[in-house]
Amino acid sequence: MRVDGRNYRTVWIDPEDEAIVQIIDQRSLPFNFAVEDLRSVEEVAVSIFEMHVRGAGCIGATAGYGMYLAALEARGGSGDFSQAVQVSAARLKETRPTAVNLAWAVDRQLKAIFSAHGPDAKVAIARRTAEDIANEDAAWCARIGDHGRPIIEALWKEKNGATVNVLTHCNAGWLAFVDHGSATAPIYAAHDHGVPVHVWVDETRPRGQGARLTAWELGRHGVPHTVITDTMSGYLMQQGRVDMVITGTDRTTWTGDVANKIGTYLVALAAKDNGVPFYVALPSSTFDWEIRDGVKEIPIEERSEEEVHYVAGARAGEVITTRVTNPGSAAGNFAFDITPARLITGLISERGVCEANGEAIMALFPDHRVGSK
Amino acid sequence: MRVDGRNYRTVWIDPEDEAIVQIIDQRSLPFNFAVEDLRSVEEVAVSIFEMHVRGAGCIGATAGYGMYLAALEARGGSGDFSQAVQVSAARLKETRPTAVNLAWAVDRQLKAIFSAHGPDAKVAIARRTAEDIANEDAAWCARIGDHGRPIIEALWKEKNGATVNVLTHCNAGWLAFVDHGSATAPIYAAHDHGVPVHVWVDETRPRGQGARLTAWELGRHGVPHTVITDTMSGYLMQQGRVDMVITGTDRTTWTGDVANKIGTYLVALAAKDNGVPFYVALPSSTFDWEIRDGVKEIPIEERSEEEVHYVAGARAGEVITTRVTNPGSAAGNFAFDITPARLITGLISERGVCEANGEAIMALFPDHRVGSK
Repeated sequence: MRVDGRNYRTVWIDPEDEAIVQIIDQRSLPFNFAVEDLRSVEEVAVSIFEMHVRGAGCIGATAGYGMYLAALEARGGSGDFSQAVQVSAARLKETRPTAVNLAWAVDRQLKAIFSAHGPDAKVAIARRTAEDIANEDAAWCARIGDHGRPIIEALWKEKNGATVNVLTHCNAGWLAFVDHGSATAPIYAAHDHGVPVHVWVDETRPRGQGARLTAWELGRHGVPHTVITDTMSGYLMQQGRVDMVITGTDRTTWTGDVANKIGTYLVALAAKDNGVPFYVALPSSTFDWEIRDGVKEIPIEERSEEEVHYVAGARAGEVITTRVTNPGSAAGNFAFDITPARLITGLISERGVCEANGEAIMALFPDHRVGSK
Repeated sequence: MRVDGRNYRTVWIDPEDEAIVQIIDQRSLPFNFAVEDLRSVEEVAVSIFEMHVRGAGCIGATAGYGMYLAALEARGGSGDFSQAVQVSAARLKETRPTAVNLAWAVDRQLKAIFSAHGPDAKVAIARRTAEDIANEDAAWCARIGDHGRPIIEALWKEKNGATVNVLTHCNAGWLAFVDHGSATAPIYAAHDHGVPVHVWVDETRPRGQGARLTAWELGRHGVPHTVITDTMSGYLMQQGRVDMVITGTDRTTWTGDVANKIGTYLVALAAKDNGVPFYVALPSSTFDWEIRDGVKEIPIEERSEEEVHYVAGARAGEVITTRVTNPGSAAGNFAFDITPARLITGLISERGVCEANGEAIMALFPDHRVGSK
């Protein structure tokens, strides 16, 4: 997407030096925009572990490029090519053990590299596979945009050409993928096609991904938006100032229950109570084909209470951390909640839009079997 | 309530110098506990205007004591007593023009002062009236505690003696009144009677009254509690970890619609969806006997977007402000929302508990007439 008039992805090979992978260092956003050079597998591993990049699609693609660097290193090294590549693969996989896209991207690279003969061919196929993984992620998100855009256009027509107000929670934007994002893809698509869109951006405490990342993305791409605290979505819907909600998801059951960033469930309840359509955008890689009941079966990560007590913010050009809770008080930090399928109007995937129930999902994805991954 | 083993109210006459009114300066909480001496009507006016004190009950009582200082100043001055007191009354009223308790307390003092003859009698009655206003506020809140405690005790029995988990939003604690608070009164009453209570404290962005004031209050009084972000209440209810919700209110229609701090409506929706009882505690002075439809008729204050962009926190013993949103993004700041009566299990007032509907409210308050204030 556009940043200061230039098109960016979240990760790419340096056009001037093919031994360097470049990423947007997301740690310093929104206060600074920095591109980081990654010159080794180790630097890629650190960038994932220390969350210079985050978001399932983005992590997977970065690991894919990391395996390309692994092939380059193996070709330049004095040891056994296969063994060197295997060591790099293990190093990359251990950085974020729970992110399925990461292991999937590394395994796909291993398979590709071992299918080619000779160091040069192995490097060439690793590069092509890294680009394929990134391109596929971007293409899927673009298709989510194509399928979601008509929903926004229909609201635009219903409103006789008035601006469509979309509310989103957390960051399921292009920073979390390679390009376009999932929840933001229909928004960018509509905006780029001249549909007047305004986005209410939930701050998304405790980590503030909405106020920091989504607001930055939308601002740089020129999409009108307003940051609100997580307490305000219900009021705006009561006042008829939200036309639809789109969020992303970290895991969706084949029955349509959606695990997403903590607070999504509250937004969905408010949408239901006010008759506001609530959509979830997702590449199909996010479906969990084995789980039936989201509330009972999806494990919810509990994170450090320090994330609630301390807030990072900018002051005089520096990013510093201050305590915002009563000293001595305990804090809870639950990272996700479950939005039951009954609250969801539709799922927007790369194959199209469907209702959030087992029958509709299986009809769109007949190549997947429930209970078999 | 107790602070470091000592009992405090939010405002009182200095026991060592009856010409000084003392308040807890709430601006520096929770990071510093400071008692401020107010030696003149002007100092009282500034303390209200600059929010050293806040909360309807607390503002009203502080203005009452301010009128006692006004009588003292009039007696010590060289001009006309009545005229001096009228000037002071006008000065106090202009500080927060929308807080009904403030004007009500000042008018009550004027009536009392003018009913007495001679400067000494006027000062004496002003002092007694100031104490009456504060004592009544504290007594009403204590009665809210008496009426609300059995609800918590019943849950305690239902749970066979396990800890009762109460969730609250914002600060309707003793800092907002003279003592006890409204939403917190049943909690303090239960805790003081040996009922094991744990409180989930919503942070309450943007101003953080929960994380800062409610957490501080509960901590100082020794009530176990955990701060959560405003995104987490729904998840906790999904997991069966909330037994009841109690909030305060800024205005309640005679039909039972509740205006309260932004985000209350979302908590109420989650409570309804999970079968968690949702109570609103209020002194009857908070009823608006003229309004029927809360969503349509109660005006919602829109505040400065700076409160969303900038967060005040402690760092190395100092309270400083940092920016937490994307620079350049706009922010919305709506201060209240409306929780429709249909989502409310009951209202806890100084006269008892009733359902949130016109019939039940009028049965408890037959001395009030709808449409006449």
